Amino acid sequence: MNQLLSRLEWRYATKKFDPARPAAQEQVDRIVEAIRLAPTSSGLQPYDLIVVSDPALRTRIKPVANDQQQIVDCSHLLVFAAWDDMTPTRIDKMFDLVNSERGFVNEGWEAYRKVLLNKHAAQGRQANFEFAARQAYIGLGTGIVAAAMEGVDATPMEGFDPAGVDQVLGLEAMGLRSVSMLALGHRDADGDWLVKLKKVRRSREDFVLAFG
Amino acid sequence: MNQLLSRLEWRYATKKFDPARPAAQEQVDRIVEAIRLAPTSSGLQPYDLIVVSDPALRTRIKPVANDQQQIVDCSHLLVFAAWDDMTPTRIDKMFDLVNSERGFVNEGWEAYRKVLLNKHAAQGRQANFEFAARQAYIGLGTGIVAAAMEGVDATPMEGFDPAGVDQVLGLEAMGLRSVSMLALGHRDADGDWLVKLKKVRRSREDFVLAFG
Repeated sequence: MNQLLSRLEWRYATKKFDPARPAAQEQVDRIVEAIRLAPTSSGLQPYDLIVVSDPALRTRIKPVANDQQQIVDCSHLLVFAAWDDMTPTRIDKMFDLVNSERGFVNEGWEAYRKVLLNKHAAQGRQANFEFAARQAYIGLGTGIVAAAMEGVDATPMEGFDPAGVDQVLGLEAMGLRSVSMLALGHRDADGDWLVKLKKVRRSREDFVLAFG
Repeated sequence: MNQLLSRLEWRYATKKFDPARPAAQEQVDRIVEAIRLAPTSSGLQPYDLIVVSDPALRTRIKPVANDQQQIVDCSHLLVFAAWDDMTPTRIDKMFDLVNSERGFVNEGWEAYRKVLLNKHAAQGRQANFEFAARQAYIGLGTGIVAAAMEGVDATPMEGFDPAGVDQVLGLEAMGLRSVSMLALGHRDADGDWLVKLKKVRRSREDFVLAFG
């Protein structure tokens, strides 16, 4: 665990990747697996993970991502794409998957399915999307930690035009909306202005409130 | 890193904690520290972390959290409380902290401060809260992984009435809104129905879309 803290100190939002040093595919595979294993509310996993290694596609994403050079200099760009709505089809698919994998149908679980179907029908599309987006951020947090544990540099990114990214990747037709990205690769420490600067966080006293 | 994957396989949303086996304070401290070190968009850290160990307070939270027994059986309840708005005061405080910690003022960074002040003023309170909530979920994801690495059991929770929890903890007066919780402790494996069931996740083929 102290290793985890030291990896979190090591990591930073990489501003300059070395294009000559891609993340190894097996490392990317493990980072993706960590994200897949990350929990989500009611186990719904209401987002898809897009892995873009194709350089041509990343060249098309760059202009809708504030021309950030990391998009093309990284080796793998993970795009977290939240479900645009929590439809009955999607909710049922996850409940059916659980039944199928566990090999039985449970009354309590089926009652809970109805609760969720009603809840998501009632709260509407935008609230459902925001719900899904938050779950995707559990995956983003998991991916950030997993990359750090692998010694893979990563840039979590929100500075892009989601509609533009959705268009390049054809996400709208899949019922998806991009919410964040994680660029993976290895830092070009000499060319990166940020790596030299102190990591700044709110103090423990400011950030944490304890009711002991 | 393979250790991280095996810890993610080990963890599950604990339904029954053993009240006689609390999480050790030094473990909780490291989990909290991992969350504090987690990145957020532009480094704003727009949420506070509430650590509730006081049993009496947790007894008052339980009824506004669907009477879930984990609230009182766990030893430490982390409450992720997003900023209710991204006010100029809050944004300026973070930019000033960065300047103070790094010991210099940078023209580009000051220009970026203005961009963010304008953006958050323009998009309004609700969008600002949703932004802050997503950042809190990066912390939640980090806390989930950190607990697993510590061998501390954890329950990520959304099944509560946020307004009710805010009232018990007095969060509204602090400009905070609870968005998720993470109960920490050690499982009572014999008494937990979920620990016996297979962990179900969408298949890699279903969850991941690769543009290679």
